[in-house]
Amino acid sequence: MNTRRLNYENINPHVKAARYAVRGELSTKSEAYRARIAEGNANDIPFSSVVSANVGNPQQLGQKPITFFHQVLSLLENPSLLDHEDILRDHLGYKGDVLVRVKALLSVVGSVGAYSPSNGYLAFRQDIAEFLERRDGYPAKASDIFMCAGASSGVNTLLHVICADENTGILIPIPQYPLYTATLSLLGAKCVPYYLNSKAGWSVDVGAVKDAYENATAKGVDVRAIVIINPGNPTGAVLSEENIRGIINYAREKRLVIIADEVYQRNVFSKEFHSFKKVLCSMQATDPERFQQIELASLHSVSKGLIGECGHRGGFFELVGFDPRVQAEIYKFISIMLCPSVIGQCLVSLMVRPPLKGDSSYEQYEEESMGILEDMKSRARTLHAVFSQEEGFECSVPEGSMYLFPSVKIPPKAVEAAALEGRSPDEFYCLKLLDATGVCVVPGSGFGQMEGSFHFRTTFLAQGTEWADRIVSFHRRFMDQYQ
Amino acid sequence: MNTRRLNYENINPHVKAARYAVRGELSTKSEAYRARIAEGNANDIPFSSVVSANVGNPQQLGQKPITFFHQVLSLLENPSLLDHEDILRDHLGYKGDVLVRVKALLSVVGSVGAYSPSNGYLAFRQDIAEFLERRDGYPAKASDIFMCAGASSGVNTLLHVICADENTGILIPIPQYPLYTATLSLLGAKCVPYYLNSKAGWSVDVGAVKDAYENATAKGVDVRAIVIINPGNPTGAVLSEENIRGIINYAREKRLVIIADEVYQRNVFSKEFHSFKKVLCSMQATDPERFQQIELASLHSVSKGLIGECGHRGGFFELVGFDPRVQAEIYKFISIMLCPSVIGQCLVSLMVRPPLKGDSSYEQYEEESMGILEDMKSRARTLHAVFSQEEGFECSVPEGSMYLFPSVKIPPKAVEAAALEGRSPDEFYCLKLLDATGVCVVPGSGFGQMEGSFHFRTTFLAQGTEWADRIVSFHRRFMDQYQ
Repeated sequence: MNTRRLNYENINPHVKAARYAVRGELSTKSEAYRARIAEGNANDIPFSSVVSANVGNPQQLGQKPITFFHQVLSLLENPSLLDHEDILRDHLGYKGDVLVRVKALLSVVGSVGAYSPSNGYLAFRQDIAEFLERRDGYPAKASDIFMCAGASSGVNTLLHVICADENTGILIPIPQYPLYTATLSLLGAKCVPYYLNSKAGWSVDVGAVKDAYENATAKGVDVRAIVIINPGNPTGAVLSEENIRGIINYAREKRLVIIADEVYQRNVFSKEFHSFKKVLCSMQATDPERFQQIELASLHSVSKGLIGECGHRGGFFELVGFDPRVQAEIYKFISIMLCPSVIGQCLVSLMVRPPLKGDSSYEQYEEESMGILEDMKSRARTLHAVFSQEEGFECSVPEGSMYLFPSVKIPPKAVEAAALEGRSPDEFYCLKLLDATGVCVVPGSGFGQMEGSFHFRTTFLAQGTEWADRIVSFHRRFMDQYQ
Repeated sequence: MNTRRLNYENINPHVKAARYAVRGELSTKSEAYRARIAEGNANDIPFSSVVSANVGNPQQLGQKPITFFHQVLSLLENPSLLDHEDILRDHLGYKGDVLVRVKALLSVVGSVGAYSPSNGYLAFRQDIAEFLERRDGYPAKASDIFMCAGASSGVNTLLHVICADENTGILIPIPQYPLYTATLSLLGAKCVPYYLNSKAGWSVDVGAVKDAYENATAKGVDVRAIVIINPGNPTGAVLSEENIRGIINYAREKRLVIIADEVYQRNVFSKEFHSFKKVLCSMQATDPERFQQIELASLHSVSKGLIGECGHRGGFFELVGFDPRVQAEIYKFISIMLCPSVIGQCLVSLMVRPPLKGDSSYEQYEEESMGILEDMKSRARTLHAVFSQEEGFECSVPEGSMYLFPSVKIPPKAVEAAALEGRSPDEFYCLKLLDATGVCVVPGSGFGQMEGSFHFRTTFLAQGTEWADRIVSFHRRFMDQYQ
């Protein structure tokens, strides 16, 4: 008998209700395989390596950090190296602009070991504001920017402040990155799901948003905000400007706060990225009265973009049109956790202020960052081609982010076998895939999918295509077994 | 009229209810003074520098980072420097053990820019377990350790899982570090305050805990856990082993989970630090049946200790006696935020595995860390002497942590003047102190205090004693004005 004070039955039911499949059972099992292979205890394992295609973690899969950024960070951690500028320059490959930048950053932070203001150092928020102005062509203010420990922490803050009680509803795209539904579970607030249009490259169907909104409000739910992930996770879609205008129009009509998760804004392959801020400002410019009081929160992060600096936990969100008293409550909320990592803040500043043409590190920076983008683009296309050629898969053309989200036909016999194990068919499929090939992907049910359809999310970060071949040959065996 | 969708009236009432005075109005005002002085726009300000004695932020106030740690971190940020070992060693002061350690850490993390497991890298949790075994003389397991972004994040996790609903009560010491009451406000759970014994050096009076527990349970509150901060924040007290035994005995009797906030365990000046884990294990060793099922969570951090690395947001908690299914829910909860900063995790590993006798960095490490401790001790004593000699202050002898919490007599005329401004008397006092001297401290009401008594919390991190003299001469003027 469990005589402990805390047990599964009596802890916070909201925590129990939260689901976050990206790091769930499959991920744990894949790590156990990896450990056994590393120990040489893998005789009964039918593969020789684990491929973590479940998490968007570029540097784990061999993506090289940007030299300029890491040179700067190394000196921030040990500023006494600045006493040896000649050695740094002549023997260790530190260019002049690295040294200049380090001194500028140190004049802001003093030491990276000290706490900062809870919303991040003002100078860094000014850097961010200037980046947003360059990106969008519209003004941005440092006081409207909140730095945070990756975009996840920013979303946590926004949803905490917006959700008043269990009757608050937030429109969430399906499929979605499960941070949103998990956080709503923790808050005991309501997810109001709207289905993305898989037939139109996973764009937002404003009609579907409307249906979801009306269904929920008819049940008395106080729908307050709409989340859009653009470029899409897990879908890989990039929204058109027209689509964004449609969303903003609907948000205005229903007075919905817009939460734009734009962490993949630099991972765009075949379309132009349009920020919600830019589109909103352009609508405000032509019709100020109509659009002036829209509230928009948009997020960005060092974890994604081209640099993939997930481990540094840096990010920010910008608020547009928010009530200053609400902003003050946001500040108080984040102050309880003191501040985001200061080295992470420095990296945000570097990301939004990379070397410019004429700076001594410029060419290397451009070469490295363009190289990352080209690699990612080419891997996305290769992987897409693999899925497109194979019967049983359907997969949209990758436009951005780090993911493909193919649908996979699962035969009725496999659906039955899954039910016997108490699993959803897609989870069953992904688990068999892992057990057979070492490739770890995330079942579509972890993100949400249309009833009766089955998907999985795979990153296209792992090198080569050998692992995609593993998926295909597994799929054929799976179909042979269950068809 | 405010026509925004989100306004102060309709956002999350739990966020509005949260109070966190450490970074509140006074802190903001002090930063505004600092900015004006920096801009040279300070003609009407009666002081020439701001002293931030409100936040335990050692490196902001001139404490030097430990060389060994920052050399290691610098190479982790730029591992290509390892191609130049001779230069690092011969010209840049990197000793051999720094290079060895960097390679070991890199073999764990690959790149510090990659995500880690959500509870931190296993190898680092093993380092922590070995540290706890050396510290306490009892076994510790890596699987019971969760790394986190500073202890604040760990407390947030623990309270989220423990608090089931608005009827859950947690025993919180008064005065306390306001993270606890703020987090309980966010969760909508109940703070069950127990008063520390100011007459006995702010020790825990188990009788007062009993009264608080019984009062709360009589009202139907489900009191589940007791928080102890040792060494004390804001009190500076270090609990005796006997006091800890008394608390554990009471926790056993009432089946209370113990949350031991031990982030100041290295900041101890005049007494020995006894961890709850060690005392609990010694009680279990002599009477296993009686004490085996006590649940203890204890926290530590790189922010405090001697190293004061607040900006790196590294920390951990250890669970003892917890249900494995509850631990699994804790893992799921933290996985939603992905992982704590990886460079912060590396710093935790360094803190718990500093250079050993015989290592090439050992002597410098010892000298630097002992220097920090001695400096802190001497500043604590000097500041204590200042308050002790002055009429109107009462202050316990500093035993540990980074704070003094003197009581201050506030005359009735000042209490009236405060009421006219809608402020508590201690807040009024601290605001006048800031406006007159530039010294920023935190009013006692931010931590809780006995009805009718008034305190403030000051760190003893700022260099010199000139700023203490500012406090004393302000106090005399204040008394002259209001007595």
